Amino acid sequence: MVRKNHRFTLAARPVGLPKATDFAYEELELREPGDGELVIKVRYISLDPAMRGWMNDARSYIKPIAIGELIRAIAIGEVVESNNPKFAVGSHVQGMFGLQEYVVSSGDGLTAVDPRLAPLPTMLSTLGMPGFTAYFGLLDVGKPVAGNTVVVSGAAGAVGSVVGQIAKLHGCRAVGIAGGADKCRYLTELGFDAAIDYKSADLKVALREACPKGIDVYFDNVGGDILDAALAQLAPRARVVICGAISQYNATGKVTGPSNYLSLLVNRASMTGMVVMDYAARYGEAAREMAGWMAAGKLASREDIVPGLAQFPSALLKLFSGENHGKLLL
Amino acid sequence: MVRKNHRFTLAARPVGLPKATDFAYEELELREPGDGELVIKVRYISLDPAMRGWMNDARSYIKPIAIGELIRAIAIGEVVESNNPKFAVGSHVQGMFGLQEYVVSSGDGLTAVDPRLAPLPTMLSTLGMPGFTAYFGLLDVGKPVAGNTVVVSGAAGAVGSVVGQIAKLHGCRAVGIAGGADKCRYLTELGFDAAIDYKSADLKVALREACPKGIDVYFDNVGGDILDAALAQLAPRARVVICGAISQYNATGKVTGPSNYLSLLVNRASMTGMVVMDYAARYGEAAREMAGWMAAGKLASREDIVPGLAQFPSALLKLFSGENHGKLLL
Repeated sequence: MVRKNHRFTLAARPVGLPKATDFAYEELELREPGDGELVIKVRYISLDPAMRGWMNDARSYIKPIAIGELIRAIAIGEVVESNNPKFAVGSHVQGMFGLQEYVVSSGDGLTAVDPRLAPLPTMLSTLGMPGFTAYFGLLDVGKPVAGNTVVVSGAAGAVGSVVGQIAKLHGCRAVGIAGGADKCRYLTELGFDAAIDYKSADLKVALREACPKGIDVYFDNVGGDILDAALAQLAPRARVVICGAISQYNATGKVTGPSNYLSLLVNRASMTGMVVMDYAARYGEAAREMAGWMAAGKLASREDIVPGLAQFPSALLKLFSGENHGKLLL
Repeated sequence: MVRKNHRFTLAARPVGLPKATDFAYEELELREPGDGELVIKVRYISLDPAMRGWMNDARSYIKPIAIGELIRAIAIGEVVESNNPKFAVGSHVQGMFGLQEYVVSSGDGLTAVDPRLAPLPTMLSTLGMPGFTAYFGLLDVGKPVAGNTVVVSGAAGAVGSVVGQIAKLHGCRAVGIAGGADKCRYLTELGFDAAIDYKSADLKVALREACPKGIDVYFDNVGGDILDAALAQLAPRARVVICGAISQYNATGKVTGPSNYLSLLVNRASMTGMVVMDYAARYGEAAREMAGWMAAGKLASREDIVPGLAQFPSALLKLFSGENHGKLLL
């Protein structure tokens, strides 16, 4: 059976915000699966801020995407043809499938997905990498204790919304920073104790009011001015989790460093980077606990699904303009 | 007995580098000691970079020096008159005596000093706050293990020189960053494996050569460009100790934040502030171990003593120009 495959490759290294011309949309004929191989039809592709970093030619925790290479992305698909007894036609699998419609796979590196446990989009969101990032970043690095004030930036996003909800589940005061009244309303619906709209509020004043005892755990997804404002309000022995810096990913000059970093000294605080892949061996533990919270109605998940692979270049920009509501998927 | 006391008070809050006119040199008549009180003649006064911070009107780990108030400083003195049976005339004591010749004290907050254990200047240096800062900052916060590469900035200073020597004693590779060939030669004499002159070397290249396996522990006394260069060379799971930021203490604008802070994320590294006073209960432990190393010839201490209280304003500036060699005392 001959299938046409469509995919996006990296045509040029983006400078600043990615442009449509940085990507090439290609049509290829999909090769037939060999012995032990299977064909996966990609159903949902996760669009993540980290993808922007993978497009730079820089030393990082993962190798850059080469020019001409498929854009790397996590996705969920359905097995549509199989010469591998471990994967039945009709079953679902997750993997680093990239931005394409079909994958021919040996089965290595695939994770089976049970669609009865949660909707497939949720598996790429709260019960996937973003949820695991929130879970381990907050609990393992941030180490919140009941009564602590936990502040998270990018709070309406796939990671941030889970950070705030888990903070509440651990008896903390959860304060979210997000852009716009809609997102702030969403945070309140999720049970955050306070939501700060960084686009309209004086962030420093708003943080001081929302955190009268200072910030014990600050979970940073954005960097820049928001990180600086949070550093200025740390409580003694605070923990700052550096999960991302979406405000800086498209910087063409030097990254803006946190001018208030000496607050770490004054408060004997720490700032620690985390990469979710380090916790791969413990994903099951996080998935079980979070699935339990979801089933009990204590943890909500929201996805923003853009239909059609071809929408990738414009959909990716929603991440950086902050237009997406919830986890962005294609 | 009527004694004249001379002292320095804060006349104005310094903007940038302190000027002589920011301080007032006063002559007062010393009051007679009352019941239970004693008179201390100040012998050695410690001049520390942290004093610059105390002169700013900013929230910190200690309250700012008020205008008109005595300049705060740690010192060692000799008891010259005593109505307190706990302190005999002729004995030595350490305390926060400030920039003055005499103190009338109730005895509270004084630490007895035994001049037979080490020279008095050493008690304000390697066996005092700077030494304790190095000891606890490196061992408790930096957590070096044998084989690690430990880099320290301000390496020829009172704190940095001890950090490097303790790193060696713990089986680490010690790399020091200092300004000028003289200081770098001194580091080599102290047993550092490599010394980098930030005034003449390309810091990034020099650090890469001196730390082929990356930096496991970076002990920062200076901030600014040197901190940024070190962040760029971190090894996975590195620990950055923020002890001070002498390059930023006289900044009149915003402090320069570390542009390379996202190296913490890439390397799952942490950056933690420390204040030596938190370890007050454990000073004895550090003093015993370091005195042992000194007695065994494994730990060297050097002091740069400026004679005369009146020299304070110009002596203080030596700290920021990097002219001092070893711990600066008056």
